[in-house]
Amino acid sequence: MKVVELSGGVGGARMARGLAAVHDIDLTVIVNVGDDLPTHGLHIAPDLDTMVYTLAGVQGPHGWGRSGDSFVTNSELARFGLNNDFKLGDLDLALKIFRTLRLTEGSPLSEVTDTVRASFDIRSSIIPASDDPVRTVVTTDEGDVLSFQEYFVNRGHRDHVASIEFEGAKTARPAPGVIAAIESADTVIIGPSNPVMSIWPILSVEPIRDAVRAHHRVVAISPLIGGRALRGPADVVLSDLGIGVGTGGVLAAYQGLIEMLVVDSVDKADTGTREGVKVVAHETLISEPAKAEQLARAILGL
Amino acid sequence: MKVVELSGGVGGARMARGLAAVHDIDLTVIVNVGDDLPTHGLHIAPDLDTMVYTLAGVQGPHGWGRSGDSFVTNSELARFGLNNDFKLGDLDLALKIFRTLRLTEGSPLSEVTDTVRASFDIRSSIIPASDDPVRTVVTTDEGDVLSFQEYFVNRGHRDHVASIEFEGAKTARPAPGVIAAIESADTVIIGPSNPVMSIWPILSVEPIRDAVRAHHRVVAISPLIGGRALRGPADVVLSDLGIGVGTGGVLAAYQGLIEMLVVDSVDKADTGTREGVKVVAHETLISEPAKAEQLARAILGL
Repeated sequence: MKVVELSGGVGGARMARGLAAVHDIDLTVIVNVGDDLPTHGLHIAPDLDTMVYTLAGVQGPHGWGRSGDSFVTNSELARFGLNNDFKLGDLDLALKIFRTLRLTEGSPLSEVTDTVRASFDIRSSIIPASDDPVRTVVTTDEGDVLSFQEYFVNRGHRDHVASIEFEGAKTARPAPGVIAAIESADTVIIGPSNPVMSIWPILSVEPIRDAVRAHHRVVAISPLIGGRALRGPADVVLSDLGIGVGTGGVLAAYQGLIEMLVVDSVDKADTGTREGVKVVAHETLISEPAKAEQLARAILGL
Repeated sequence: MKVVELSGGVGGARMARGLAAVHDIDLTVIVNVGDDLPTHGLHIAPDLDTMVYTLAGVQGPHGWGRSGDSFVTNSELARFGLNNDFKLGDLDLALKIFRTLRLTEGSPLSEVTDTVRASFDIRSSIIPASDDPVRTVVTTDEGDVLSFQEYFVNRGHRDHVASIEFEGAKTARPAPGVIAAIESADTVIIGPSNPVMSIWPILSVEPIRDAVRAHHRVVAISPLIGGRALRGPADVVLSDLGIGVGTGGVLAAYQGLIEMLVVDSVDKADTGTREGVKVVAHETLISEPAKAEQLARAILGL
């Protein structure tokens, strides 16, 4: 069975871990690159790395970074006046250095990502949504225009969001393999990521959006539980942008794209068929791998 | 009293530490950049960093790198197939990342070096010989053409050297302040570095060579003790290139440039006036700071 997941960071990576645990599944994850940003001259790809580390089983305690990592270099960067709010672990830094080196030498991000995947003995395919830059830019209600990392890391996603843009999306092409994977997938899953900030940047690449829209079985997992995001600002952003709150907000964010939405068991009241989408309830707290696998099996009807 | 030192790595940095310990000395060190090389996409400047760390008192146990450093990132680079023979410590890496970032943004090496110097509260001036690339290239007796790092680090300076070149030297300009420092110095000291591989690359920049030649008091310290280099291949290279062995080799390497040569006490037999150069003996084992200061005072006639 061929499965594609569109994914942002921690939540999507945990879903991918659940899917990868199901035998006989040929999994391809298509990962958001809207948060990618040069930091200290290094090419940081937060969602790709969270995906790699989670599928390799070496993710850090909060879901990002490497387990057991140290922060010697990151702390020392402050000596030279560099802002080190973005916590770059020492193990993690090796990957960043490798990626930056290969990109500078001219390798596309997808090729570098595949080398990294192989370095960690990961079987599932991991593809960035695009090899071209797609950058999420947030305009706050105060009129500040921020890169995603500024908004999320430096300012702790405390700002209210007036609008969001995906710079480069119009000219960005899907990375090699993305469209073929979606078209040949039995099921396309949209992970429990922030719809606006993690999934929209992927869908902002028109051919990807078209391929997802054309697919007959697209299942999204809501990142909200009782109307609140487990982590990050998904709920606030859906509300700030006037898209909606709770399950209705998630449905609106994916309008015309999905056949099914999985909400958490606590939101059982939202189940049924809403605007042509079948809304089903299941436990969506999937920080434990076994829970993620259960959810994966339920979605795939196994 | 104004003092300039031309320096390579560990030996020259130890000499600089001795000079910096003498009160009322206005010290400027002009540092070899011939060993600089991009490594993993980072701008590595081994001699500049050894100088900074030694003057800051944070140098590693073997004279290079940082004391108490760890090598987490460096070890992890191997996962991605990168050659990590060049031991990049985690603390050390912060400086490399900072330098690479600033150089990429367009700052000249001398400006970055001065920022680094200030970050470590070092009073002495530290100037790279040139902001332009000067690269030491070694041709071995087997005909292999190697960068200095390949020759020195990857191949452990085991090869015999047929010839040496300093790529870029003809067009390289002295970094800002280099010529003024030499011209206004009461004494110019050539540190106990490898004459061919650490000092020649500095002198390969013609205006620097001219300024040193024109100076009335240039004192070199021999890096050889009993004809052997304390570390590194200085003795072998002087011999391989047919320049000479022992004190005679060092004198030949600095022909026409120096007024005085300090040899180690064990080479007392070599003292006297040789080819117009006053050769004096003094203890030159200066790994202990107090010994370095004694040597500094002796050279400066204090």
